[in-house]
Amino acid sequence: MTKLILDLDTGIDDTLALAYALASPEAELIGVTGTFGNVTVEQGVANDLALLELFGRPEVPVFAGIDHPSWADSFEVMPESARFHGANGLSGARVPACAHSSVQATSAVDFIIDAVRSHEPDELVIVPTGASTTIAAALQAAPDVARRMHVVMMGGALTQPGNVTPFAEANVLQDPEATNALFAAGTDLTMVGLDVTTQVKLTRAQAEEFRATGTATGAFLSDMLTYYIDVTEEAHPTGVPGCNLHDPLAVAAALDPGLVGTFTCDLMVETEGAGRGRTIGDPARVTCPSGRSRVALTVDAERFVERFMERTLALVRRCA
Amino acid sequence: MTKLILDLDTGIDDTLALAYALASPEAELIGVTGTFGNVTVEQGVANDLALLELFGRPEVPVFAGIDHPSWADSFEVMPESARFHGANGLSGARVPACAHSSVQATSAVDFIIDAVRSHEPDELVIVPTGASTTIAAALQAAPDVARRMHVVMMGGALTQPGNVTPFAEANVLQDPEATNALFAAGTDLTMVGLDVTTQVKLTRAQAEEFRATGTATGAFLSDMLTYYIDVTEEAHPTGVPGCNLHDPLAVAAALDPGLVGTFTCDLMVETEGAGRGRTIGDPARVTCPSGRSRVALTVDAERFVERFMERTLALVRRCA
Repeated sequence: MTKLILDLDTGIDDTLALAYALASPEAELIGVTGTFGNVTVEQGVANDLALLELFGRPEVPVFAGIDHPSWADSFEVMPESARFHGANGLSGARVPACAHSSVQATSAVDFIIDAVRSHEPDELVIVPTGASTTIAAALQAAPDVARRMHVVMMGGALTQPGNVTPFAEANVLQDPEATNALFAAGTDLTMVGLDVTTQVKLTRAQAEEFRATGTATGAFLSDMLTYYIDVTEEAHPTGVPGCNLHDPLAVAAALDPGLVGTFTCDLMVETEGAGRGRTIGDPARVTCPSGRSRVALTVDAERFVERFMERTLALVRRCA
Repeated sequence: MTKLILDLDTGIDDTLALAYALASPEAELIGVTGTFGNVTVEQGVANDLALLELFGRPEVPVFAGIDHPSWADSFEVMPESARFHGANGLSGARVPACAHSSVQATSAVDFIIDAVRSHEPDELVIVPTGASTTIAAALQAAPDVARRMHVVMMGGALTQPGNVTPFAEANVLQDPEATNALFAAGTDLTMVGLDVTTQVKLTRAQAEEFRATGTATGAFLSDMLTYYIDVTEEAHPTGVPGCNLHDPLAVAAALDPGLVGTFTCDLMVETEGAGRGRTIGDPARVTCPSGRSRVALTVDAERFVERFMERTLALVRRCA
């Protein structure tokens, strides 16, 4: 059994990541922390609470993280994020607001620190799928957790161009300084970035399989996925049809590292100039690698998508 | 036995690459073609002729390649190139001008096309260590050779920053359009770039071993290497001492692919904006890889440096 903390900016593919985690028999989701990116922290944790209730798991605690990047005083959703995820992060699709639980009083930073201290390093994996701000704040507040922390993050791009600029992937670009601090901290880290997530596609036919369950939850996911596929195909008209399963792949790799092939490499984030937000190998560590940082470069896409569909469909069939 | 064509901009590490090729019992060097980069084509082929005589192999033919980038009408050596390689490309060290042979009348483009057509694909490897202009011109003049051509190039950087800009490596930046044409042509290609060449260091003590042979050739190489180490350490004062063996590693990987670990990835070169000259995975081919393009990401540095020293020292001992 692997214990998980998901640090989400919920978001369409964050929703799918949450569903995958809840649907995985070898995972125990001990908490969701909210970061910003696809949506604000406020919207994100509201989405998390509503989705946990929808998926039948309202007892999973939700913690609010830091609501703005380390380099700014406030945060506004980028137009591209709103375009890809809809104004509410869930494609505008309605999900009933959660009636039975609310955000925890403890901050996400404190929850993460306590969780890392109270678990063995190989027992707990943190999966960030948005800005690294909250994780970096936890590392700064409690440097002792760095050597115990195990992170499998969705973000970055090492061997492929970025998706916001030619150099930067959206999650890292939200707070390059924070991701750079995470990369420098010496945590056990696997970067699951555009190198592999762009290899993983969900088709329209697969999106419709959720509706075919006859449940309201299935219809909600089908509507959301159809929206996501529409926007993706509009943005990349010559690409392979369908949408990418960015965030769920990070959860899947956290639970089954064998799904991806990795390259061991210490990373840094460029913070200046045109390359701001670019994730790249750290030349200062190329001849003395830590061995604790790796980048997923290959993925068994077929096996992952098959597992994703099987598990999340089973979850949806158990829902209303 | 592997037949080799070296496409050199001779240069200090090109000199070492030439020495390594001549010193390798499993290699047959069928020709040297001159490109620009560290030096002009004119200076480069003069260096090639002089070095082949110095190394006791004046019968190896030398062909002049195209003397300017595809995007310009002329070529001037970049100040950084002159700094790293000296005004004559050989650290200013004197090597007697070649008295017994001269540049072939046939152009490098025609020589490459004829050589590729008259050999089996697995019999001949072309190793470019400078601007890709001549190779790209051969591919454009004779598209039929693309599927028969086998290239192991020194150039580019996929997982590490560039060495001229944060994005671009020197050889590729000389003519990004040409390298991009090479990447698009569908040749069997291995990129040996800064990802691995920055992991390979030659020390001052090793440089002195050439002088200890008591030969004039050994003294020449020791002087040249000492110059190269001085400039490298001045440019990177906090780095690992010594100099990088960029070009010889490409020759070594051409002769023994097992020296490097590769990642299969179709590449492109950015030609616009700040990223001009950046080598990066081609997103259009990420879900339909050709399987014919790979990037060296790991290297058995110890084995390579040991073999480099053993072979080139043996060559030097056979020289005057």
